[in-house]
Amino acid sequence: MSMPGRGRPRDMAVDRVILRAALDLFIERGVEGFSIEQIAKRARVGKPTIYRRWSNKEELIAAAMETLIAEEVHWASAEAVDTESPYALVEAAIESAAVTTAAPHYRALVARVYGSAVSCPALMAVYWDHYVRPRRELATRLLERARDCGTVAADADLDVAIDMMVGAITYRVLQPDPPGVDDMRHYLRAVYRQIGLLP
Amino acid sequence: MSMPGRGRPRDMAVDRVILRAALDLFIERGVEGFSIEQIAKRARVGKPTIYRRWSNKEELIAAAMETLIAEEVHWASAEAVDTESPYALVEAAIESAAVTTAAPHYRALVARVYGSAVSCPALMAVYWDHYVRPRRELATRLLERARDCGTVAADADLDVAIDMMVGAITYRVLQPDPPGVDDMRHYLRAVYRQIGLLP
Repeated sequence: MSMPGRGRPRDMAVDRVILRAALDLFIERGVEGFSIEQIAKRARVGKPTIYRRWSNKEELIAAAMETLIAEEVHWASAEAVDTESPYALVEAAIESAAVTTAAPHYRALVARVYGSAVSCPALMAVYWDHYVRPRRELATRLLERARDCGTVAADADLDVAIDMMVGAITYRVLQPDPPGVDDMRHYLRAVYRQIGLLP
Repeated sequence: MSMPGRGRPRDMAVDRVILRAALDLFIERGVEGFSIEQIAKRARVGKPTIYRRWSNKEELIAAAMETLIAEEVHWASAEAVDTESPYALVEAAIESAAVTTAAPHYRALVARVYGSAVSCPALMAVYWDHYVRPRRELATRLLERARDCGTVAADADLDVAIDMMVGAITYRVLQPDPPGVDDMRHYLRAVYRQIGLLP
């Protein structure tokens, strides 16, 4: 995507190549299975080019997950969450969420992220702060609005409700006989209905 | 545990040492990080002693998880699930579940199991068939009874409900700032309440 007059399109292209290489290596080998040097080699850049942008491997992997996943998953804006109907917002997100979560590289990424949570807590911590927390805040606002509408239980623990949705979906894709897009469409509906985000 | 007159106590002790060694190595290094030979070495037995009992590493790890976790988690019997009140059964299980799920080695085990789900699907498949499936059948019966009692929604998808409970709990223990026993006690109550298994 070139944006004339908006700065450094060349650098953005380099960033993208580095982030892609980091994400691919992470999915192939896990966080302990590769080095910054191997990312540089695969992205055909020098190590200093990487270190000018990210100070360590965990930050780079977290940034890679954030940038590349954000392009696939279409999140509602904060404004939409505050003004549109919760049911309509969730309904509008189902199709893209079903396609994303049924993809083999999504499953592989979930396995790697969970797999490194205890042996490499730094990655989970960076990922959580930069990526998960802001999205959870948005999800909390959505659940609060649905609670105001009376579809989510008045006494529901919203943090736990978010864990139940994210936890179920990520657990499901790691089970034997991984789901296809149709399965996930059906599955996501059942999850959101259980919480009160779909009728 | 010696059981006079009940067969081969010596073999059971050997089994236990092998299973313990396999589980420890799995937690330390992940499924790809060690061999049957290394299990034999740590358990101080010959490789044939292992192969007489288990035909491959995945079966051995699955057996290790099953045997050693079953000792920690106190599951209700099928008979109890069919006759006692669902609320009472869940209430009785909270304390042991909180202690188990807050333990560092439980977190490490969850991370390893999820982490190997895509790179080594054989382990998840064996674990699922031998260990998860029978427990899910028990959980389904519990949810059916709770549905008959009117506390679980009549139209709830019970497989999805089980995923939401297991998924939330395993996701929670992998998050930054892992929970202690008190946190898990509170957390489990919120999860079960959301599904309708506690008032």
